[in-house]
Amino acid sequence: MTYCLGVITRYGLIMAADSRTNAGVDYVSTAQKLFDLSCPGERVVLVCTAGNLSMTQSVLTLIRRDRKAGVQGNINELTTMYDIAHYFGAKTRQVLEQHQDWLQKDNISASCSFLVGGQIKGELPELYMVYSQGNFLRATRHSPFLQIGEIKYGKPILDRIINYDDTSLDAAAKCALLSLDSTMKSNISVGPPINMAMYEADTLKVGYRLKLERGDPYLLRLRKSWETSLRQAFKKLPNLAWHDNEDQDQDNHLVMTDILP
Amino acid sequence: MTYCLGVITRYGLIMAADSRTNAGVDYVSTAQKLFDLSCPGERVVLVCTAGNLSMTQSVLTLIRRDRKAGVQGNINELTTMYDIAHYFGAKTRQVLEQHQDWLQKDNISASCSFLVGGQIKGELPELYMVYSQGNFLRATRHSPFLQIGEIKYGKPILDRIINYDDTSLDAAAKCALLSLDSTMKSNISVGPPINMAMYEADTLKVGYRLKLERGDPYLLRLRKSWETSLRQAFKKLPNLAWHDNEDQDQDNHLVMTDILP
Repeated sequence: MTYCLGVITRYGLIMAADSRTNAGVDYVSTAQKLFDLSCPGERVVLVCTAGNLSMTQSVLTLIRRDRKAGVQGNINELTTMYDIAHYFGAKTRQVLEQHQDWLQKDNISASCSFLVGGQIKGELPELYMVYSQGNFLRATRHSPFLQIGEIKYGKPILDRIINYDDTSLDAAAKCALLSLDSTMKSNISVGPPINMAMYEADTLKVGYRLKLERGDPYLLRLRKSWETSLRQAFKKLPNLAWHDNEDQDQDNHLVMTDILP
Repeated sequence: MTYCLGVITRYGLIMAADSRTNAGVDYVSTAQKLFDLSCPGERVVLVCTAGNLSMTQSVLTLIRRDRKAGVQGNINELTTMYDIAHYFGAKTRQVLEQHQDWLQKDNISASCSFLVGGQIKGELPELYMVYSQGNFLRATRHSPFLQIGEIKYGKPILDRIINYDDTSLDAAAKCALLSLDSTMKSNISVGPPINMAMYEADTLKVGYRLKLERGDPYLLRLRKSWETSLRQAFKKLPNLAWHDNEDQDQDNHLVMTDILP
């Protein structure tokens, strides 16, 4: 499995990905899932990948090959992020058409998905999720993050922290790391190293990036700080008002009705 | 969907459940999913249900009917929690055998699962998860909580807080509520009221129970306290050490290698 996320705020973009890949529990490996297809000064394109690794590799290879060969309509010629998301969708369809039927015969999923975020000169920064079917969805002011892969464990912290208007890029990056760390702690199919990139709006180049290996001191400090604070927060929670089980006339106790008498 | 969880520590048991049920987004309703089948002084049996509501209702109805009719081997005659888990599995198989084929024709899942926790006089408290296939799993000192339904959103907080030896029943109850609250915030298929019961080891009766409706003042205070603390915790996180994108000789920066040159 995989967990990647992209966050867009009015300050720019954060893209982050784990690196675990597995074909069954007996073949666990690492693979890079965050890629930079930018032309600094002209366009920034950051891509995260999830799903069948042979499919996502092929899609990226074809996109790079078109660019290198100067094929008409290659990624460097597209003038909006919308067109780039569309282009990823089209390449995904092309690759899946070649392989899907053969994989289905053996009940292997060919499914894959992408996060595509960035900015083209003269346009606003945008963030898209491209589905395995080739259609795509844009992050909005009200849904300022997108996730692919093993998304559920790390969603509550994003729901509580990320806000398009207020969240700084540094805060978004820390929140992305916590979201990844929570997922790694709860699900072994997501694992280090974590790759992350920060793009500050209107700079037209990827500003910062980092790679955190297993046991990275920052990751350990982040986790320790968070867990210590969570335990303190936990101690500060208001006390529960239990209802005694024999206190039958309380109208908000737990009514253990029989569904058949 | 549904989210139920059970926590066992050396102090006893917490069982909690949401109450949302839906058959498609246009038929959303509430249903009780926490049930008490105890005989105080003799045995405590608490049950949470998830999955196809018509199946879980039938299983509970048959178990109650057997008990009422004094059928040999009914739930009151079983002498261990292991036997009770086995009994739930057998009833589940019986009900699914009656209905599964008909549901499959229309691609409707008959799948259902149970958490069964409690204690029988002279035995230790135990907590089981009964799968739709009728097999069952026991919570252990190292895996002191079990979840059914929409389990992923609420798992990270349990992973960080619950410990068999140290966690008090009050703390386990608060943690269960946070886990439910995080899930309700991130997934609309899980919703109030929340039912929760606390069983203190060796008392042989359900000690306390509570029901929290949407907008319950305690739930709001709990959520507010938690969110305020999380934001403070977030501010205390150590600062990130970004690597400048041009700082190519740093050996731990994000290496954006091309998979094909």
